[in-house]
Amino acid sequence: MFVVKIGGSRGINLDYVLEDLARQTEPVVLVHGASDELNRISEQLGKPPRMVTSPSGYTSRYTDRETLDIFAMVYCGKLNTRIVEKLQQFGVNAVGLSGVDGRLLEGRRKPSIRIVEEGKTKVLHDDFTGKVEKANAGLLRLLLDAGYLPVISPLAISHEREAINVDGDRAAAVIANALGADRLIILSNTPGFLKDVNDESSLVRELSREGIAQAIETYAQGRMKKKLLGAQEALDEGVKEVVLADGRTPGCITAALGGQGTVIKATKEG
Amino acid sequence: MFVVKIGGSRGINLDYVLEDLARQTEPVVLVHGASDELNRISEQLGKPPRMVTSPSGYTSRYTDRETLDIFAMVYCGKLNTRIVEKLQQFGVNAVGLSGVDGRLLEGRRKPSIRIVEEGKTKVLHDDFTGKVEKANAGLLRLLLDAGYLPVISPLAISHEREAINVDGDRAAAVIANALGADRLIILSNTPGFLKDVNDESSLVRELSREGIAQAIETYAQGRMKKKLLGAQEALDEGVKEVVLADGRTPGCITAALGGQGTVIKATKEG
Repeated sequence: MFVVKIGGSRGINLDYVLEDLARQTEPVVLVHGASDELNRISEQLGKPPRMVTSPSGYTSRYTDRETLDIFAMVYCGKLNTRIVEKLQQFGVNAVGLSGVDGRLLEGRRKPSIRIVEEGKTKVLHDDFTGKVEKANAGLLRLLLDAGYLPVISPLAISHEREAINVDGDRAAAVIANALGADRLIILSNTPGFLKDVNDESSLVRELSREGIAQAIETYAQGRMKKKLLGAQEALDEGVKEVVLADGRTPGCITAALGGQGTVIKATKEG
Repeated sequence: MFVVKIGGSRGINLDYVLEDLARQTEPVVLVHGASDELNRISEQLGKPPRMVTSPSGYTSRYTDRETLDIFAMVYCGKLNTRIVEKLQQFGVNAVGLSGVDGRLLEGRRKPSIRIVEEGKTKVLHDDFTGKVEKANAGLLRLLLDAGYLPVISPLAISHEREAINVDGDRAAAVIANALGADRLIILSNTPGFLKDVNDESSLVRELSREGIAQAIETYAQGRMKKKLLGAQEALDEGVKEVVLADGRTPGCITAALGGQGTVIKATKEG
């Protein structure tokens, strides 16, 4: 079996992804983003997004309780429902869940976060973000064994039982590990990991587990840092292969399974 | 086992309902509304609600595709997630779903609806509302048997595999019947069925199955018409007892199970 993460950035073609997903014969779990739509609806609701950067250079969305409600509306309500509906149209019996459902994704809420803004380090409180630590494999297997395809929004539940916003790539990695999945495919709006973010011909076709840290250090920018970190964590915990692939083209999942994109393997010999 | 429907009107106390739900020992399925919150967020998004009345006097929400997306955001995203999170805080392992998930609720989309506006009958198209016909009892039992409490948003999937807005009371009745539940408890912001909607002392404590049609004809207004119709349909299809009860007070589910509210029984001897 394998796990697919679809990013929520502009350019990703949901129809191409889901149509190709419907063609697969192996069991699949799908994790989705919705960042672009979330930004749009947050603006509409008069609560524009506030992106913050940690001292080590990772960006994240500052998520107070109001933002968390909007996050849940867009991810679980709009995108998850839309994906499940489309999969049903493609003949797949999908079931949408977030990590709050059945404590599917449990994690640690960060009581405060350190950010760098205008060169200064600040501490923010009332932030409902966190780090996924555990997936409820039992619930996923219950659904998979009954023939359902789980579609997961990256909300998790904290140890204090609050809903928290978590990173979707990491959520997908934790799910892949919990299920003993061989492969994790991360689809975004680029052909894979690019040495130069503005040059699609700079695609790195293969990356070793050992090469990830250096790639993060040397080339990766913004979201790609998190994707590579998620890939590293997935490999560390038992996934054999992570593919960073293009979610903008027809047949993109089949292509990724065939080795298109950036293939990152746990062992050198593959 | 029994099924509980919580209305989405102002005044219903979600904490009271969910805290009392956590005390119950029988398996439960919860169906929820969110109409008040939906109106609020629709206004905020610049798409104010349009309520329409059928020639036979039933009111419903005109639901074009944009309204359907907002419906899904508020019901599945905001309210369902909030309810599941609160139940988790009360120690209940809840799982939120809509009728689109696993084709949990299937129904017929109305290709067009007839409405009465300013005394004239009109026909509206592009409306995504419909009537629930069938519930996927297998999926609900799968979750119940594994110890999860299903929390259902009243979206359904049409025979053409489109998401549709359906009546929550009717959805609860169809679920109760599919599961062979003995009782259906419908909680709203009144003590039950009132002969005079402005006088809580006019509560009807018992209503026979045969008395429903007359009650609809003679006394019921607005939403209560649909609630009574839902009760009638539930009884017609096998539920033994429907209780219309008050969702504003502590211990409201225990009270309803003890006979508070309007009790409608399938047989006169009970």
